[in-house]
Amino acid sequence: MTDVCATALTPLSFLERSSRVWADKVAVVDGTRRLTYADLGRQTQLMARALIASGIDSGDRVAVLLPNVTEMLTAHFGVPLARAVLVAINTRLAVDEIRYILEHSGAKMLFVHPDLLGVAAAALRTLSGIECVVTSGADASTASTHLSWSEFIGRAGESWDLPWTVEDENSAIALNYTSGTTGRPKGVLYTHRGAYLTALGVLVHCRHSTDSVFLWTLPMFHCNGWCTAWAVTAIGGRHICLEEVRPDKIWNLLRDEGVTHFNGAPTVITGVINAPEASPVTTPVIVATGGAPPSPTTMSKAEGLGIELIHMYGLTETYGPYAICEIQDTWPTADTVERFQLKARQGVGMIQADALRVVGEDMSDVAADGVTVGEIVMRGNNVMAGYFRDVAGTEEAFRGGWFHSGDLGVMHPDGYVELRDRAKDVVISGGENISTIEVEHALVSHPSVVEVAVVGVPDAKWGERPKAFVVTHSGVAVTEAELIEHVRQRIARFKAPREIEFVAELPKTATGKIQKFVLKEREWANQTARIGG
Amino acid sequence: MTDVCATALTPLSFLERSSRVWADKVAVVDGTRRLTYADLGRQTQLMARALIASGIDSGDRVAVLLPNVTEMLTAHFGVPLARAVLVAINTRLAVDEIRYILEHSGAKMLFVHPDLLGVAAAALRTLSGIECVVTSGADASTASTHLSWSEFIGRAGESWDLPWTVEDENSAIALNYTSGTTGRPKGVLYTHRGAYLTALGVLVHCRHSTDSVFLWTLPMFHCNGWCTAWAVTAIGGRHICLEEVRPDKIWNLLRDEGVTHFNGAPTVITGVINAPEASPVTTPVIVATGGAPPSPTTMSKAEGLGIELIHMYGLTETYGPYAICEIQDTWPTADTVERFQLKARQGVGMIQADALRVVGEDMSDVAADGVTVGEIVMRGNNVMAGYFRDVAGTEEAFRGGWFHSGDLGVMHPDGYVELRDRAKDVVISGGENISTIEVEHALVSHPSVVEVAVVGVPDAKWGERPKAFVVTHSGVAVTEAELIEHVRQRIARFKAPREIEFVAELPKTATGKIQKFVLKEREWANQTARIGG
Repeated sequence: MTDVCATALTPLSFLERSSRVWADKVAVVDGTRRLTYADLGRQTQLMARALIASGIDSGDRVAVLLPNVTEMLTAHFGVPLARAVLVAINTRLAVDEIRYILEHSGAKMLFVHPDLLGVAAAALRTLSGIECVVTSGADASTASTHLSWSEFIGRAGESWDLPWTVEDENSAIALNYTSGTTGRPKGVLYTHRGAYLTALGVLVHCRHSTDSVFLWTLPMFHCNGWCTAWAVTAIGGRHICLEEVRPDKIWNLLRDEGVTHFNGAPTVITGVINAPEASPVTTPVIVATGGAPPSPTTMSKAEGLGIELIHMYGLTETYGPYAICEIQDTWPTADTVERFQLKARQGVGMIQADALRVVGEDMSDVAADGVTVGEIVMRGNNVMAGYFRDVAGTEEAFRGGWFHSGDLGVMHPDGYVELRDRAKDVVISGGENISTIEVEHALVSHPSVVEVAVVGVPDAKWGERPKAFVVTHSGVAVTEAELIEHVRQRIARFKAPREIEFVAELPKTATGKIQKFVLKEREWANQTARIGG
Repeated sequence: MTDVCATALTPLSFLERSSRVWADKVAVVDGTRRLTYADLGRQTQLMARALIASGIDSGDRVAVLLPNVTEMLTAHFGVPLARAVLVAINTRLAVDEIRYILEHSGAKMLFVHPDLLGVAAAALRTLSGIECVVTSGADASTASTHLSWSEFIGRAGESWDLPWTVEDENSAIALNYTSGTTGRPKGVLYTHRGAYLTALGVLVHCRHSTDSVFLWTLPMFHCNGWCTAWAVTAIGGRHICLEEVRPDKIWNLLRDEGVTHFNGAPTVITGVINAPEASPVTTPVIVATGGAPPSPTTMSKAEGLGIELIHMYGLTETYGPYAICEIQDTWPTADTVERFQLKARQGVGMIQADALRVVGEDMSDVAADGVTVGEIVMRGNNVMAGYFRDVAGTEEAFRGGWFHSGDLGVMHPDGYVELRDRAKDVVISGGENISTIEVEHALVSHPSVVEVAVVGVPDAKWGERPKAFVVTHSGVAVTEAELIEHVRQRIARFKAPREIEFVAELPKTATGKIQKFVLKEREWANQTARIGG
């Protein structure tokens, strides 16, 4: 009876249901466009059929380079409906990085927003066999080498709807690239089952209801919007698209569209609550945040405006959110330091996730004393199926049967995990992961540079920003601006350090390994708390 | 990586999480007893270990005959934690019925409440090999042939905790007996996966949060409380036990304990809203109801008191709730007849369930015209794994690859299903299913009776009640009271008809089949609406 009593779990079932149950309800607000769930369902079917007509086969990868527009949401269902795997690329990446992802993923098609056509065209230049579709509400395709959205959709033809089901719930639905701690991004495979369960967990923890109005401040290319693209569709909530994260626009939409929920890194929230337009909201707004814990000031100010922060934690490898800092009744309710310290912790596994562990080198749990540092490891339905085309990387990440986050943390006596340090090579700036090794590689490629170490330093606006410590060849005259520009030519601009300190030598271990923590300690010495601590 | 990235779904993970995350939070209020989630976790571990020490093996059945007390909730986790299958027996059944279920399920142990010891002892008399444990908060075991709860728990001994995991999510967690449409109850197998997913669906649709306070008006022996025993534990809500459904007690608990949710058949709700204690609640209460649609009067009065009704539909074979009548913004908000008609429909599949279908004999969908009657069929994760020890019955139920509910309904143009008639042999009285065939069998066993037909007739208090049409042997003098007493001696007292009409003959088809619908039509003629219609 297994086939009858165990339908394969897939987020496709969410849109199937909503396009039927909430057919006439507004599903998407995208500028002046409004689509009902019936419209979204139809558009998804068209996209999937057009993909198949374009030669997309089961398991093929389809890449998108899109901001949070209707087509991006549609792709979250249309690509898997065509039995293909969605590769949502960070729109802020440089040409080389985009090219690497297109090549590594083996994407057969790329959907690109008109604003990103330049970078896409440059990335595609040396690649062959990737068909490019320019999405545009107004159908403003100009480049003759690219297909317009309507030309693409025209391929769907007249046909029956495709079934909103999958054969194997453990098959891949998405391939999301990390920003890479070792220079090169890794392709993280999400399964239909994992995406389905994480979406349900998001619904429960973020207290979504059929009245949810979700504002897309978080890029959908970040872990598929922490699986919220699927979750909000499941509950029949309303998606409010947002191409550009600007506090004034956000405040307009909060008020005009009656937004109930949004997600964002603390920097986004800081921008929102400090905007001149900020004033208390009439209906409470729930905001899931992650990447770095919100500061006490942010928490306090947000609460004063009627914005409730839900602090979550996870990685690309864990479908975005894996843990939540559940609030206990016994915690102080006043704006005390203790309350903020408790709430700034990464917390406990979500309802659909396994428990987090903090382990030592031998995989045994560290003492739950809030002091002993170990590595945070995770497993279960909310951990990736593995790295795409990287058996060695996957085995390394899952050594001992647990996914190794690379994040260092402590376990508190109450079972809450707290980050003590990030994966040692990553700086999180404005919600974006920056691999310091990658920045170092860019710097070291300059002829004047001998040696370099990049660390995250505190930044009032971005949480952290990368700072580089550089040793130059003796007698060479190179300026800070020159080196920063050198980096910007090579990797995404936002990854470039905004500060360079020229030093005579870098602190090193006896075996010659650079001691980044020494540099970090110095930079963070004047802060009351380390990020995550 | 499947073992690492796909933990088997099981409700056990819910208590594992809550006993850790919500360790100090009150999990259960049972009269004067209060247990935290840590307590509930510990008690569950003790129960499971004591079961294993008692010889319970993986897959064995463990029966319970308990009202909604702490031990009943504990058994929902403790029995599966011991890798066994929970058989929660309806406490209102007669001795013979209980004996049948114990025998058919092959239960090795029975947990019984002191108040039900008499009936349990009678049922066990001719059975061997079933150990009986008397649960009691006060440990008041008196019968020397039975074990007390504390003696039982004493077997747990000192040991490590059992793992809150299962090897196979498609293994059985519970075996729930139907009230039987063909006389004998059928054993419905629930899987860990199905229970897990239905519980998540209940959380989403009933809008549970960590602040949920759930009052146990619905017996947990009904589809494991519509999977709410697992759901409320998952979210870390508070269970308020209730041994006896009395409106005055309910109102006291609603106020004293700050109840946010309860479940119940419309008769329970009618009792609550019409109680002298009724007055508007300060915090809104969400009430999931099913079995029969609530009447317009009930809906209106409940709303006036701040009680929001969520109308659900399902069967024992579908883990309880499978469908929900989702409310559309476009429906009239005033107390109009149209609004109530829309809300009284059985609705659409829940978020975790597949779509409902209404099909003809050939398994093709009936026209979605709100008029054409067909059979409601279902499939997917929220449909049972099959009938226990009944291959033929299972095959019959799943013919054509769909579970046949036996319920007749129509599909409306908006995709909402509405019951037109019940499974033809079942009367739902006060939330209890009564098989008319079973009542007929009891009546026909009386020497004076020739032929009989039992149908559900409208009842102001119970929704429906069984009425018998009896043809007696000519010249025989038997009274209504005599026949009713005859039935009560044979089956559960609540199933006995409260009215018997002696007739000369029964309406029949040309082939001699009794036309129950003719009798029904006559009885329901004076009602503005049929139940479910």
